[in-house]
Amino acid sequence: MFTYTRRAHYHETDKMGIVHHSNYIKWMEEARTALMDHIGFTLRRMDELGVASPVVSLSVDYKRPVEFSDVVELRLSVKKYNGVVLEFDYEFFNSSKNEVCTKASSKHCFLMDGRPVNLRQAMPELHACFIEGTKEES
Amino acid sequence: MFTYTRRAHYHETDKMGIVHHSNYIKWMEEARTALMDHIGFTLRRMDELGVASPVVSLSVDYKRPVEFSDVVELRLSVKKYNGVVLEFDYEFFNSSKNEVCTKASSKHCFLMDGRPVNLRQAMPELHACFIEGTKEES
Amino acid sequence: MFTYTRRAHYHETDKMGIVHHSNYIKWMEEARTALMDHIGFTLRRMDELGVASPVVSLSVDYKRPVEFSDVVELRLSVKKYNGVVLEFDYEFFNSSKNEVCTKASSKHCFLMDGRPVNLRQAMPELHACFIEGTKEES
Amino acid sequence: MFTYTRRAHYHETDKMGIVHHSNYIKWMEEARTALMDHIGFTLRRMDELGVASPVVSLSVDYKRPVEFSDVVELRLSVKKYNGVVLEFDYEFFNSSKNEVCTKASSKHCFLMDGRPVNLRQAMPELHACFIEGTKEES
Repeated sequence: MFTYTRRAHYHETDKMGIVHHSNYIKWMEEARTALMDHIGFTLRRMDELGVASPVVSLSVDYKRPVEFSDVVELRLSVKKYNGVVLEFDYEFFNSSKNEVCTKASSKHCFLMDGRPVNLRQAMPELHACFIEGTKEES
Repeated sequence: MFTYTRRAHYHETDKMGIVHHSNYIKWMEEARTALMDHIGFTLRRMDELGVASPVVSLSVDYKRPVEFSDVVELRLSVKKYNGVVLEFDYEFFNSSKNEVCTKASSKHCFLMDGRPVNLRQAMPELHACFIEGTKEES
Repeated sequence: MFTYTRRAHYHETDKMGIVHHSNYIKWMEEARTALMDHIGFTLRRMDELGVASPVVSLSVDYKRPVEFSDVVELRLSVKKYNGVVLEFDYEFFNSSKNEVCTKASSKHCFLMDGRPVNLRQAMPELHACFIEGTKEES
Repeated sequence: MFTYTRRAHYHETDKMGIVHHSNYIKWMEEARTALMDHIGFTLRRMDELGVASPVVSLSVDYKRPVEFSDVVELRLSVKKYNGVVLEFDYEFFNSSKNEVCTKASSKHCFLMDGRPVNLRQAMPELHACFIEGTKEES
């Protein structure tokens, strides 16, 4: 499990006075970016090598609202990785309120020049890094 | 079925050159707002009456990317409504590319003063409007 | 003068209950995009030709807040265009409240392959289109 | 001078491959929030006391683009504070590229229950805190 910690910004609230639900999707991306930094293969480097990992699907289960200035820990786990598909589970823990506030998951594939690739063959170094990194994290 | 049509803005794209996946969540909200306008009970009026309909959960299945300036039709259907819970299905049809690009769903409850309510009892007028409106739309 | 009309979305509000001030910057971009469509040389076509017109500077004078669901007319005028620099003035008229709510301006240059160009020489067709279009609009 | 450090997120980029210019406005707000935390009178507490400090005007001078994952230091100085009006200057220093990338300023007033107030009379504690805090920062 990897934890990415984040404070809720004012500009992320809506007129209900809570963080707008669309922002959670951005936080999930930020957590993935931080994880890649952590395993030593940055998203920026992937980008420069022409590999993209677009979101194929996601789901979010909003349990409790987050307010401006609350500190939220996103606990990120790799649920599945096989070179072709990557799946994450997310638990949002609001440490200002001491409660799990949201659960989510996302599924990603890998593209090179717009076409699906298996990282095992196409980018063994990144693949190894993923296997190692996610092992360490799980 | 109710259709909300929307052009993709430049500020909605990301460095992959496509609409960032978090924006779809905003488009879904815009479509719901437009549906409420259509059935004659605006979200603004709900708001003024102290009724909120927060998102309880959502899922999105991204099939094909949307590019800047593409025109997308969001086809919105009420899957379930019983006074307590409201569920929508969404089909995103990219009319610039003549393809279904995304499918999604969302689930909502109703709150008054922060507590769950059954609209059937709490707001019969809005309930009737929903029953009528969603009948018409289904 | 060219007018772009826009309704304020729920996801654009903040916990003060009004449209967050950062969104005005996005609306200004949307208005410019609509103007380009109107003069017959879309931003998308510019993009495909490798010409970008980044924002060099902007200023915004917020006079009156905009609320969810308010309809706002952005009145856009070209203040200056000489092939190298393009300047716009914006007046935001809140037609739901019958008041001018904001004034703004923005300044743009033109880049090809990341380097400043004079459209007069580099893209005479676009230049002519601009001269015509902005004449028509002023 | 107070410094707020921030990494550019993927979701903040646009199809030009750089951080979209509207996000700078959000970063400026984040820097002000961090400054308030630092001087010991959080925006959240102001909020709870019913005091808002809306943006009256702002201007931004974009010099050099910021790319995904760049680390940017926002250097924030109070230019003016007199109980009624608060003005900030911002320098964005891209430490990944070792260059000043943007300069900006913003002007704010103070509202209680929607009406302008002079903090000197209306909230002497907050006023003192501001005088102290901004002295310390200038």
